[in-house]
Amino acid sequence: MGGPEVERLIGLLARLPGLGPRSARRATLRLLQDPAARMLPLANALLSAAQSVRPCTQCGNIDSTDPCAICADPSRDTGLICVVENVGDVWALERAHVHAGRYHVLGGTLSPIAGIGPDDLNVGPLLSRIAAGGVGEIILALPATVDGATTAHWLTDKLRPLGVTLTRIGQGMPIGGALDVLDDGTLAAALGARRAV
Amino acid sequence: MGGPEVERLIGLLARLPGLGPRSARRATLRLLQDPAARMLPLANALLSAAQSVRPCTQCGNIDSTDPCAICADPSRDTGLICVVENVGDVWALERAHVHAGRYHVLGGTLSPIAGIGPDDLNVGPLLSRIAAGGVGEIILALPATVDGATTAHWLTDKLRPLGVTLTRIGQGMPIGGALDVLDDGTLAAALGARRAV
Repeated sequence: MGGPEVERLIGLLARLPGLGPRSARRATLRLLQDPAARMLPLANALLSAAQSVRPCTQCGNIDSTDPCAICADPSRDTGLICVVENVGDVWALERAHVHAGRYHVLGGTLSPIAGIGPDDLNVGPLLSRIAAGGVGEIILALPATVDGATTAHWLTDKLRPLGVTLTRIGQGMPIGGALDVLDDGTLAAALGARRAV
Repeated sequence: MGGPEVERLIGLLARLPGLGPRSARRATLRLLQDPAARMLPLANALLSAAQSVRPCTQCGNIDSTDPCAICADPSRDTGLICVVENVGDVWALERAHVHAGRYHVLGGTLSPIAGIGPDDLNVGPLLSRIAAGGVGEIILALPATVDGATTAHWLTDKLRPLGVTLTRIGQGMPIGGALDVLDDGTLAAALGARRAV
């Protein structure tokens, strides 16, 4: 329907996370209602983002500047680095305004099944940042999955000899959570992470 | 996060139906993972669709050819025209393979609240098609809403003198539906549309 150009657009939109064939059709119809006001701005935004955006050579975050705005911000604590899996994690922590230091984006987690080994992770620049001095604490904020835990163990072994404090983010019941809907793994983690009141 | 270009892209994607700020961020992150393979094809698809696609001067459908592929298809019944509100309705009927005739897209329904009057609907070309002869039946497939019913009544008054058979699509229980989940309006329509078995 709508010719090959429209079919192709629907196919590409349907590949985005959160959109399927049905919602991609609805989105395309909305765009087609006013091509000049809706399609061209989106096309131009895609082109300019694709041209301007690059990974930060220091931390692996994505930005239109290198070093990225976070690495370049003098008001942020250079001695505190939060290690995350991907750029989406940086965005999530930034939205929550809970981290006053900087970041390091690994770009993945170790995964034998997906064929991701140590060489595929952005670790070299992290070691350089630590070697350059001034880093007091590394916070591991990796996903609470098998691959995330494997990566955290491997990274701990690698960073321990460098004389920085290593921490990892807490695990347990989410704020607003109720005990009876938590999975067994979270319940075990919450009990294991109990603290004196 | 990610610079002004990325923020702008997220903002534009978030305006698409089916996407909100959160899923627009996820979609943008996916696109940023490989700009050359993901962003540029989407930008080009948007540009070529915006350039190639136009409304069919006969029926109001959207296609890269004018007349559209449906109007130009000699195997379709020229004597049977299904009147729908918008292009999405054409796509839905075409996906279901239930209509062997042609279409006419009104581009909206009469709505005093939204300020849509008779002059805003694509009715002139429909009258011309009927005046040109050969049209035996007009099927009104307008939405089962107040505005849709108003439009159907108004269109019936306009088309009745032209000597074509006027029908409207059936209303009642959807296939696969169960009585106890239907709303009152559908139940009333289903009872009103009962037929002898």
